Amino acid sequence: MKISEINERVLIQSISKLLTRQDKNIVVGAGEDDCAVLDLGGDELLLLTTDMLHRKTDFPHQMTGWQIGWMSVAVNLSDIASKGARPLGILMAMGLSPDTELDFLEDIIKGMDDCASKFNTHILGGDTDSHDELTMTGTALGLIKKDLLVHRNGAKPGDMVCVTGNLGSAGAAIMSLDKGIPVKPKILKALLEPVPRINEGIALVGTCAVSSMMDISDGLALSLHDIGRASNVGFMIYEERFPVRPEVTDLFKDDELLQAVIYTGGDFELLFTVPHEKIEIVRSVCPLTVIGEVIKKGIFIQKKGKIEELKSKGYEHFRKKV
Amino acid sequence: MKISEINERVLIQSISKLLTRQDKNIVVGAGEDDCAVLDLGGDELLLLTTDMLHRKTDFPHQMTGWQIGWMSVAVNLSDIASKGARPLGILMAMGLSPDTELDFLEDIIKGMDDCASKFNTHILGGDTDSHDELTMTGTALGLIKKDLLVHRNGAKPGDMVCVTGNLGSAGAAIMSLDKGIPVKPKILKALLEPVPRINEGIALVGTCAVSSMMDISDGLALSLHDIGRASNVGFMIYEERFPVRPEVTDLFKDDELLQAVIYTGGDFELLFTVPHEKIEIVRSVCPLTVIGEVIKKGIFIQKKGKIEELKSKGYEHFRKKV
Repeated sequence: MKISEINERVLIQSISKLLTRQDKNIVVGAGEDDCAVLDLGGDELLLLTTDMLHRKTDFPHQMTGWQIGWMSVAVNLSDIASKGARPLGILMAMGLSPDTELDFLEDIIKGMDDCASKFNTHILGGDTDSHDELTMTGTALGLIKKDLLVHRNGAKPGDMVCVTGNLGSAGAAIMSLDKGIPVKPKILKALLEPVPRINEGIALVGTCAVSSMMDISDGLALSLHDIGRASNVGFMIYEERFPVRPEVTDLFKDDELLQAVIYTGGDFELLFTVPHEKIEIVRSVCPLTVIGEVIKKGIFIQKKGKIEELKSKGYEHFRKKV
Repeated sequence: MKISEINERVLIQSISKLLTRQDKNIVVGAGEDDCAVLDLGGDELLLLTTDMLHRKTDFPHQMTGWQIGWMSVAVNLSDIASKGARPLGILMAMGLSPDTELDFLEDIIKGMDDCASKFNTHILGGDTDSHDELTMTGTALGLIKKDLLVHRNGAKPGDMVCVTGNLGSAGAAIMSLDKGIPVKPKILKALLEPVPRINEGIALVGTCAVSSMMDISDGLALSLHDIGRASNVGFMIYEERFPVRPEVTDLFKDDELLQAVIYTGGDFELLFTVPHEKIEIVRSVCPLTVIGEVIKKGIFIQKKGKIEELKSKGYEHFRKKV
C-alpha cells in the first residue's frame, strides 16, 4: 500500500505506534500534539517541534528570499504558539542548490533572523546541504511553566470556540494564485509572511482559562476534528460569525468563500476553547472572535439558517495536487 | 556569486555573521561548533544539532529502509557524541514521495527507533511532508553537566591526538561503490550503519582529561583543520599509526588508501586531544589510538619518513560531484 492511499492523521498514528516510548520524562510524545513535551525536572517544560517546507508546495515563485526565511521560522513558531509557550530558539537545516546566489541565501538568513528576533528568540544553529529542490527544515524549542500547559484534549461541552485574528486570508491568497486572480497585497502578505501568534498564545494560557488550543495551519475544519477527537467532543460553528477581511469576501462568495475560510489552510491563527464564564477574562488579554460552541458529538456548521456536517478535510501533504 | 564558489566553512561563517545573538543563555551559537549549547539555568547544558540527509548523496541505492532510518538518527547522535553529551531525544522530519510504500516507511521508522533505543534515547516527534526526493532532517538534543563540556578550542601544543575505532572503512566503501569494486560486508556496514560514539564520548569527557573533541564525519583532514583553527594550534600525524582494517588495506594502497582514510569522510569516529600525562587515564575508559601530537603551527602528515602538509579538503556538500 502506498502512503498516498492513507489519511495523513492515520499515517502519523501508525508511525507513532512503531516507536518505543519508555521515558518518564516524555510528557507528550510523537504524534500526540503540535509539539513534543519534555519534563527536564525544573519548573518549566521543554517543547519541541519540527516542520519541513520546500519550493514546490510551500514557496510560491512570488516569494522573496526574505519571505522564505521568515515563513520557515514562522511555521515552527506557530506550533510553539499553539501551546502558549515562549520560544527558546530555532535550528534551520537548509537544502540548497549549488547554483543558489549568495545574495538570495543572505536574504533567506535575514528573513529567518528577523522572524526569530520579532518574537524575542534566536537562530541557534543549522545545517547546509546540497539539494535539487530548495528545502527548509526548521526545529523550534519553547519553554512553558508546568501548570500552564494546554493540550488538545481539554474541551468540554458548553465551552465557547474562539479564534485569533482573521480567517481565510491565506486560503483566499492560495486560491487566487491557483486561479490567476489578482489579489490585494494585504491578502498575499497573510499567506507569504504569516505571523505566528506567540504573544497571543502566551497571554491566553496565562489566564488559566483556556481548555484546549491548537493552530489552524492545516485548516479550521481539520483542527476542529483534531480537538474534537482528542477531547471526545463535537462543535457547532456559525458561518456568520467568521472574522473575514472584506478583501476576501470581495474575491470569493458562498462555497468558494467557505473553502478559503475553513478548508484550504495557511492561516496561522489559534483555535481555542474557553468555559463560558471565563470568556471575558480571556477577551481582556487577547483579541478574539467566538465562532461557536463545544457540543457533545458531531462537528457542524450553521450557514444561512441551515445546519450541515463539517467534513474532516483540509491540507494533506500526500494528497495535494502535483 | 554562487554558493558553490565559496568554501563551505567560509559560507557557514558568513551566514552566522548575519544572525542576531543577544541571548546570554546561548553558550555556543550557530556555526561555532558541532552543536549549539544553551544554559537553561540548571546543572546541565542543553545541546542541539540538526542534519539534513537525502537520497541522491546520502542514501546509496543499496540501502534498506531500516538502514536509512538508522543512519538518519546516527548522524545526529554523532554530533551529540562529539560533545560527550547523553542524548535526550530526536525529532525527524521526513520528506517522502506519495508513491512510497508503507512497508518501506515502516522499515525507516524501525531503523530510526532501533538506533535511538540502542543509545537509550527516543524519537520524540517529527513531520511528514511530500517531497520528490527522499529527504530526512533529524534534530538531536543532548544534556551534559556544565563542567564537562569540551569545545574544539582547548587543544594545546604537546597534547596527544587520538581517535576512537578505525579510520577509512566508510571512505573505502564509498570509493568502492564509486568504482564498482566488490566490498566486504563489514566495510559496507561501516558506511551504511554508522555507530555514533555516544558511550565513548560520555566516557571521554567524564575523565576531565580531554582538551578538545569533534567527530570526523566530514573526514579527518577537515576535522584537524577545524580543531587547529579553533584552538590556534597545528598537528603532526603519522600514517603508520592509523588504525585501518585489513579489509581496507586489501582494497586500496598508497594515495588511494590515504584518500579513504583522511579525506573521504563518512567515519563517525571521535577525534580528540589529551595532555600527555593524562593519556593512561583516558585509555582506561575508552579504546583509542594515538595518531599524532599537537604542535604550534601547520598541519602535517608523516608518511614513509617524509613530512607533507595536510590539505584542508574533505566532504563538502556544495562541491561534490552530481
